[in-house]
Amino acid sequence: MSDTLVKRLFDELNSLVLIDPHTHINPHQPASANLADFLGYHYYTELSHSAGMPRERIEEAGLSPKEKVGRLVEGLGHIDNTVQLSWLLEAAGTLFGVELERLDQSNWEQFYDTVQARLDSPDWEEQVLRLSNLEAVFLTNDFDDPLSGFDTTRYVPCLRTDDLVFHFDRASVRERLAKCSGIEVQNLADLSLALRQRFEHFTSRGARACAISLPPSFAPQQISQAAAQSSLDRLLGQAEQASAEDKSVVGKWVFWQLAEHCRDFALPFDLMIGVNRAVYPAGVYQGQDLYDSRLSLIQFRELFNAFPQVTFPVSVLASVTNQELVSYAWIFPNVVCHGHWWYSNTPSFIHRDLHARLEAVPRNKIVGYYSDMYKLEFALPKFAMFKRCLARVLAEHFVGAMGWSERRAVELGAQVLRGNVESVFYRNQS
Amino acid sequence: MSDTLVKRLFDELNSLVLIDPHTHINPHQPASANLADFLGYHYYTELSHSAGMPRERIEEAGLSPKEKVGRLVEGLGHIDNTVQLSWLLEAAGTLFGVELERLDQSNWEQFYDTVQARLDSPDWEEQVLRLSNLEAVFLTNDFDDPLSGFDTTRYVPCLRTDDLVFHFDRASVRERLAKCSGIEVQNLADLSLALRQRFEHFTSRGARACAISLPPSFAPQQISQAAAQSSLDRLLGQAEQASAEDKSVVGKWVFWQLAEHCRDFALPFDLMIGVNRAVYPAGVYQGQDLYDSRLSLIQFRELFNAFPQVTFPVSVLASVTNQELVSYAWIFPNVVCHGHWWYSNTPSFIHRDLHARLEAVPRNKIVGYYSDMYKLEFALPKFAMFKRCLARVLAEHFVGAMGWSERRAVELGAQVLRGNVESVFYRNQS
Amino acid sequence: MSDTLVKRLFDELNSLVLIDPHTHINPHQPASANLADFLGYHYYTELSHSAGMPRERIEEAGLSPKEKVGRLVEGLGHIDNTVQLSWLLEAAGTLFGVELERLDQSNWEQFYDTVQARLDSPDWEEQVLRLSNLEAVFLTNDFDDPLSGFDTTRYVPCLRTDDLVFHFDRASVRERLAKCSGIEVQNLADLSLALRQRFEHFTSRGARACAISLPPSFAPQQISQAAAQSSLDRLLGQAEQASAEDKSVVGKWVFWQLAEHCRDFALPFDLMIGVNRAVYPAGVYQGQDLYDSRLSLIQFRELFNAFPQVTFPVSVLASVTNQELVSYAWIFPNVVCHGHWWYSNTPSFIHRDLHARLEAVPRNKIVGYYSDMYKLEFALPKFAMFKRCLARVLAEHFVGAMGWSERRAVELGAQVLRGNVESVFYRNQS
Repeated sequence: MSDTLVKRLFDELNSLVLIDPHTHINPHQPASANLADFLGYHYYTELSHSAGMPRERIEEAGLSPKEKVGRLVEGLGHIDNTVQLSWLLEAAGTLFGVELERLDQSNWEQFYDTVQARLDSPDWEEQVLRLSNLEAVFLTNDFDDPLSGFDTTRYVPCLRTDDLVFHFDRASVRERLAKCSGIEVQNLADLSLALRQRFEHFTSRGARACAISLPPSFAPQQISQAAAQSSLDRLLGQAEQASAEDKSVVGKWVFWQLAEHCRDFALPFDLMIGVNRAVYPAGVYQGQDLYDSRLSLIQFRELFNAFPQVTFPVSVLASVTNQELVSYAWIFPNVVCHGHWWYSNTPSFIHRDLHARLEAVPRNKIVGYYSDMYKLEFALPKFAMFKRCLARVLAEHFVGAMGWSERRAVELGAQVLRGNVESVFYRNQS
Repeated sequence: MSDTLVKRLFDELNSLVLIDPHTHINPHQPASANLADFLGYHYYTELSHSAGMPRERIEEAGLSPKEKVGRLVEGLGHIDNTVQLSWLLEAAGTLFGVELERLDQSNWEQFYDTVQARLDSPDWEEQVLRLSNLEAVFLTNDFDDPLSGFDTTRYVPCLRTDDLVFHFDRASVRERLAKCSGIEVQNLADLSLALRQRFEHFTSRGARACAISLPPSFAPQQISQAAAQSSLDRLLGQAEQASAEDKSVVGKWVFWQLAEHCRDFALPFDLMIGVNRAVYPAGVYQGQDLYDSRLSLIQFRELFNAFPQVTFPVSVLASVTNQELVSYAWIFPNVVCHGHWWYSNTPSFIHRDLHARLEAVPRNKIVGYYSDMYKLEFALPKFAMFKRCLARVLAEHFVGAMGWSERRAVELGAQVLRGNVESVFYRNQS
Repeated sequence: MSDTLVKRLFDELNSLVLIDPHTHINPHQPASANLADFLGYHYYTELSHSAGMPRERIEEAGLSPKEKVGRLVEGLGHIDNTVQLSWLLEAAGTLFGVELERLDQSNWEQFYDTVQARLDSPDWEEQVLRLSNLEAVFLTNDFDDPLSGFDTTRYVPCLRTDDLVFHFDRASVRERLAKCSGIEVQNLADLSLALRQRFEHFTSRGARACAISLPPSFAPQQISQAAAQSSLDRLLGQAEQASAEDKSVVGKWVFWQLAEHCRDFALPFDLMIGVNRAVYPAGVYQGQDLYDSRLSLIQFRELFNAFPQVTFPVSVLASVTNQELVSYAWIFPNVVCHGHWWYSNTPSFIHRDLHARLEAVPRNKIVGYYSDMYKLEFALPKFAMFKRCLARVLAEHFVGAMGWSERRAVELGAQVLRGNVESVFYRNQS
């Protein structure tokens, strides 16, 4: 009975039309062009590489899409236990009409061609959105993205700010900022103006969030103008040769400015906390980052207190930080639990982290899930994985232990899947 | 069958008469006077505030109890998923005779009046203790509490020492100590005498524990008399202007003295490890504290080794510390697992933490639960939450995986719920 | 049905003949000589001591084996809830033919004698290996072990290197190295040669791994020859009086050399990460070590990058580190998940850690389990505990959530139990 209850709840949740509040979709090419776009997702390349395939074999220049898929298929046998591979099988069945138990030498070429035929349909983008029950998809846009040439209600702009905070010592970043904002930064006032100009640009084109990913050691703090100006002066003079301290001071000053602009422009500020970049530099593309789980949300104490008007949807990389996130969201009105990120985006971690959130965080402060996808075909299987976890927690904890009706459990599920995306990110819709 | 097994085990455990080994009950006013006393519990105010209600609306001066409840009810819809709200519904049914699915605009006034009628019964205190199967309740007493005017076998004194360790720089604390002990502290010898006098006062009135809550960074160590005297001299001169170092040195010296007195007076020393105070100073009353989960019980290595005769019932704030607690209690004879505290006091964390304890810590070293309550009406629903978790671990792990009989599983449950409270806290009963 | 599925999967897994890839077996006396050898395992002595038995009572000199067992039995009532005690009961039934629910005053003497009769069988060693389905057992050999007088295909040598890295300041260690290698270490070149000689000795006798246990603070790094030579000079002169810095520098240099030799000799390098030694020095033999769970695998970043040719089977002491291990094994080709160690070797931690590994780490990079035993009689009950956890994860996650066939689930189980031991440790079998 419990299994059938989970299934009923899943089916109800699965019928909802959703907005995906964080992805890396390119709105000019949202869907896969071929199966290599799908199997080229870093999860498959990094897992295959970790299981023994040389990076060179995966990333050899000049490979045709079909050759690349052929090579990747060689390594799938070692990773067929992973939930990531199950996304492929789920997409095969639900998007491409092919029931697969395995993808291997015996069947990949036929599958490749079947997929290609689907992807080549003129309305594939519409089909995949409809099959995935997706109404809108949030993007991750560089600060100098013109945000033109696409429907910004379907593909919703979000201002990604890592470069501004962590790489402002690079001449290329400053040049990009000058070019897009029309402001050549000579001092803090210029920089503030340029940042404001970017917020105006983004919000005028329907942006719904400012976002940033942060290393485990990052602790935001307000920097005095004097200290920031001194560091900026040196950084402008020395560029990447500037001291780590100067880079850090300027970065923290910029971060604080971003929070101020989020306040002034009423944008949520997505914090994605905990990643160390390029820990394994010999790894495949996008398969080099890891983390140090020794961080605490206490590092954000000053920030959360200073900006009560800003909503901070917080994503954490390691499950150990999830209990802190639950506690901080239970106390701070402006802290919201946001999805299940990357290394915590597998069923066992989702299940325990989600259970902890749903039993102790106000229900209007839990944004259930985002796909983080690069291609539209991943929303369906990734959300399905989450909905199964959600249905299980609703069945076991709410219907089972708490004695709720199924109707009530589904309402809670719908709120975290859809309702809170609206209330958190569309709060100031005019 | 598993569900009915859990239910049978729960019913057995639920029939036991218990002693609650840690609460904040005021023995002169142990029960709620009205529903505002119940709904004023910080869990409801902080969660409602976190969900969007302004602190000012909750804490406006001059509100009548009924007005306050009316306002709080407005916010309950956002927190009806939380286990904390389920305590209210459980108390409604078991203590007040009202089956509620929700408390909202439609029913709160009637509920308020029904509750009031019960609370106004002349023997309500007796009723709630009887309904809750509670025989005795441990208190949290300020060091200068006269401990008079109540039955100390029912309301058992415990000496709370945070002020002495962390706020001895405050003139008010020193004055309180002088007043109650009759000793004006001029040097370490005075301070030692005054502390000893407090232990005599407390133990002569039936105290069963000394207790303290500690920030994540606290690491007890023995301080030399010379260093302590120097720091005390400066602290007495400079009071709150004294250096952080001097405050810390005096605090650690006092802490060590407390451990020595616990040894000499055969009192367990409850350590509640991990809280940072006032992380969110704009929060509601008692809804401002959070934590940094990066701590280790290795910080207590010197203490646990130095006092083999003192029992340390240890509470941890974050579940990540629970595995360390399990391991330290499995190795150190004087370390005892104590309850499920605050941010770890929700079912998913209780379940996993309890399972880890019961499978690896000697059964005589696990004190199952305390309510931490401020009003008597919370013991029943909070203990019920714990007993459900306990019944589930007993059913799944002991009866299921280990093949135990139900009788044997209930015996283990009874020992952690009741037997160990006696053996740990009433060891030296004369 | 789920319970019967778990049982079927367990039975399939339990029929496999295994290799135990990490133990402390003495190949010259692999089995217990009497029940005191079994009950003298540190889990029983340390848990009984923690539950209240004085160390002196357990470790009194001159006790006969039977007297020792009699004393230990007195304390078993307090630890009969622990999974460690269940190993005794399981061994009683499966190895000694005695079904026990408890071992206490009423039955221990008879049990002692029954066990003795079995242990005295001339072919007991063969019997226990056969009953345990064990084909080979990896050892933990001191660097100066002659490795002679036993069958090294059954009892497989592994070079344990803690002394070389952490105690090279001790004259006794240097003398042992000089004696076994024939090289008196005066400088780095000598030391390198002596180490190489040890690798030649071990690999010529069939060694399958180099292994070391590491404190939480240890962070490997490449040390310059100049710095290492300076520190070695001072260390050779001052021995244990050398500075902590010099000891650390020499230790890190030796560690790096070990990794180089692992590369050159194609040996996996087992890292057992996280133990603090002698945290409770008054504890029983082998019951004094604990840990600080605040460590990160980021400390091994330089090592994992520097030695892509070396396989690192990594064991972690605390479950919080397991997610990092999962993530690092998912990204780094040379990082392999290895067993469930010590304080994480109880069912609730095994279950959650194993689930996280099996859902996200390539299947060829998970070495399921090792017994860590000192006497052969422990392999059966410890592996059985693990196989039950494994069967449950296979049933719930793979057959249940992922829709796998039982056959396929058993194949995955067999690979982590047996196949990967071969592919990781016998990779270069000639």
